[in-house]
Amino acid sequence: MAIHQPLPAPPYDIAGLVEALGDVPVVTEPVVVRRRSRDFFWYSPILAEELKAVAGDIIVKPRNEADVVRTAAACARLRIPLTVRAGGTGNYGQAMPLAGGVLLDMTGLDQVLWQKPGIVRVQAGMNLLSLDKATRENGFELRMHPSTKRTATVGGFVAGGSGGIGSVAYGGLREPGNILAARIVTVEEEPRILELRQDAAQKVNRAYGTTGIITELEMPLAPAWPWIDVIVAFDSFWEAFEAGRAVAMADGVVKKLVTPIAAPIPSYFGALKSACPEGKSILACMIAEPFLDSFKAVLAGRGTVTHEAPSEEGPGQVPLYEYSWNHTTLQWLKTDRSITYLQLLYPHDRLEESVRLMMEMFEGEVLPHLEFIRFAGRITCSALPIVRYTTPERLNEIIALHEEHGVLVANPHVVSLEDGSRHKRADADQLGFKAEVDPMGLLNPGKMRSFVPVR
Amino acid sequence: MAIHQPLPAPPYDIAGLVEALGDVPVVTEPVVVRRRSRDFFWYSPILAEELKAVAGDIIVKPRNEADVVRTAAACARLRIPLTVRAGGTGNYGQAMPLAGGVLLDMTGLDQVLWQKPGIVRVQAGMNLLSLDKATRENGFELRMHPSTKRTATVGGFVAGGSGGIGSVAYGGLREPGNILAARIVTVEEEPRILELRQDAAQKVNRAYGTTGIITELEMPLAPAWPWIDVIVAFDSFWEAFEAGRAVAMADGVVKKLVTPIAAPIPSYFGALKSACPEGKSILACMIAEPFLDSFKAVLAGRGTVTHEAPSEEGPGQVPLYEYSWNHTTLQWLKTDRSITYLQLLYPHDRLEESVRLMMEMFEGEVLPHLEFIRFAGRITCSALPIVRYTTPERLNEIIALHEEHGVLVANPHVVSLEDGSRHKRADADQLGFKAEVDPMGLLNPGKMRSFVPVR
Repeated sequence: MAIHQPLPAPPYDIAGLVEALGDVPVVTEPVVVRRRSRDFFWYSPILAEELKAVAGDIIVKPRNEADVVRTAAACARLRIPLTVRAGGTGNYGQAMPLAGGVLLDMTGLDQVLWQKPGIVRVQAGMNLLSLDKATRENGFELRMHPSTKRTATVGGFVAGGSGGIGSVAYGGLREPGNILAARIVTVEEEPRILELRQDAAQKVNRAYGTTGIITELEMPLAPAWPWIDVIVAFDSFWEAFEAGRAVAMADGVVKKLVTPIAAPIPSYFGALKSACPEGKSILACMIAEPFLDSFKAVLAGRGTVTHEAPSEEGPGQVPLYEYSWNHTTLQWLKTDRSITYLQLLYPHDRLEESVRLMMEMFEGEVLPHLEFIRFAGRITCSALPIVRYTTPERLNEIIALHEEHGVLVANPHVVSLEDGSRHKRADADQLGFKAEVDPMGLLNPGKMRSFVPVR
Repeated sequence: MAIHQPLPAPPYDIAGLVEALGDVPVVTEPVVVRRRSRDFFWYSPILAEELKAVAGDIIVKPRNEADVVRTAAACARLRIPLTVRAGGTGNYGQAMPLAGGVLLDMTGLDQVLWQKPGIVRVQAGMNLLSLDKATRENGFELRMHPSTKRTATVGGFVAGGSGGIGSVAYGGLREPGNILAARIVTVEEEPRILELRQDAAQKVNRAYGTTGIITELEMPLAPAWPWIDVIVAFDSFWEAFEAGRAVAMADGVVKKLVTPIAAPIPSYFGALKSACPEGKSILACMIAEPFLDSFKAVLAGRGTVTHEAPSEEGPGQVPLYEYSWNHTTLQWLKTDRSITYLQLLYPHDRLEESVRLMMEMFEGEVLPHLEFIRFAGRITCSALPIVRYTTPERLNEIIALHEEHGVLVANPHVVSLEDGSRHKRADADQLGFKAEVDPMGLLNPGKMRSFVPVR
């Protein structure tokens, strides 16, 4: 394990940078900079140790794209690393400035540029919940969002995420059509502004901000149904899985979330605990209100509905999706830091058998939490199981055993994009593209491990 | 082949019926009754012969549900068969009155009862295009419709169809949630009115009107996108198939129709002939306008787009969907009655290999026309290939060879529901239900072959 040490005194010309930035807002107070240099990397006990000393030297907070260009130019001239950051909700240390330098806080670029039926053009730093409010006025919403919707930004989702609530209907961000365009600023002495459309936009998808600074995104929209949060309790995880599979396969039921979670995970579900009877496994779903009866018809009497309410995400309310995806892990971590998690993709053509096999192989050690998704046109399961953590060696063994049995692992316990992202990667030449847009390798050096600066 | 002969003089008490009906409108002119006793059964050279003499004795045209009840009661009392009919667009002889008697023309029940976001409640005899106009005002449309949308009714679609344009996204009518409720009138001396919700509504799905008289339907709605008709031309059918498969599997591309059609079928495409270059196979698609570029990204340069225009279905215009599903067959039949067709369902897990195998086995005799659909949660192909017809024996041999190789056939060359409908049947006890709602077996006797009247 290599612990990233802060350098005793930054070798970067921060004073020169501040001068070059003119009136672009900056924050230099070490305590604030240090605090904002952290994301949710600490979900991993390994990254928690490895990255604990990582910090940037200065926060730059552009107000607009011109400020982004000015910052990129100055960093290029002064050879100062630049790490893009917004909500800081990533779990792979995506926004941790491994080599220090500038933390580029994108949350000032938070405007909807235009929208029309089915499409929104938005600045990258816009919060996802605010974006949702803006599109919902016209009857639309993003096709998918992370469980961190209330704090994350659209740019952070595209750069650091991969899919989430909605992927059971539309697949992940890597599917053609799920990112319509991205506008980026290159990191060069004379930065260029590039518009990447359709397939080309995949070059910034889950690249952790290493392939250009995203300033705008054009995203496809889905009809905004009134969503109902539903919890169904089952005696066994397998029953929850089978009911979930039936719902996921039911093309006549409009849904956004189909999540089987094994006991005893739901006993950590704070405000929802009363809907999670002791010892029961649950299926957590978001169903379009007009089709709730069809959903129940698919359940066909299986399980007990213990919670059913409109999905509310205003202040003081906790939507069900904040118990899904990696929020499931968070609910447990709130009271017990002895556990960690994995990110898996099960093979669609051996779904049941491989879920069962992993359950048997790691009984009591790896607790199942699945997320039904579409992947390349087929229903399968992503998974974020809770792992009772012992040692790094055992964790790596668990990962290896999953992979040996054809269950793909996007390892959230390593710092680099290549080692971690895996099956979540977009099908695009991100490495080759980086040479074009960040030739000096200033965008979070170390994150795209295999990149060698070209000049 | 059993030719259904008209009886020399109807044994039914038609005069008594007319009296019992009071002011319910009827038509008795033999020429009109005979003409309206025919549907599109003649697509099959076998049914064309078998059913050519079939005719009802009288048309009854209810103005409302009370008229339907009155007719059902009178038919029950007088033991007169009753065949429900509306647009008469079926190809399995669904609306042909095998035993004569009453033709119940449902097109007078043509009102929207209510609609709310995602759901419409409508009288069964409403024309599908008119229904579309009514729901589209609120931004919605039916999830799927047959290629006969402009002439067919919603009740006819549910009773006689199985899926169509839209099934590539939502599956067929048999999927849970694709029919929310049906209201039916029973055929008894004192008819009852039953509301069948969710799974129970499947009892009338593709039952050809033999399991009660549908008077109202509650149908789920989808967002009404502006649809673009697109034709892409390819050198070979296989290229059209592979491009179609990629589009069908692309969950990020919103589509309603993905139809590969082999040369020389498109050379019969009248008004669209200029978009169908000689010798080319085509892929016909309907794509939501905002996502047309994503569709083209999936094509990735394959094929040549020869037609791209908003789907127009007003008078004097011909939407692309009238070249798809069984309209493909019709386009050829317009100038050449020597061909016929089949209705197939390919297995999702051996799709490519079985399509290829059938192509090789019947080269030049069975010309491929596929329809990508979702079926039970998976993408596969329905198919309506053009068959160069020789003899009934050879046709049955072709059917048997398909079935031997795991390709399901819904045989459109037989008169009964059981023999014909097959994989298109709903998963519901229609036979048992018929005993409850039509105990004397008066609803088109002969259509549900296995039914024995209970009193």
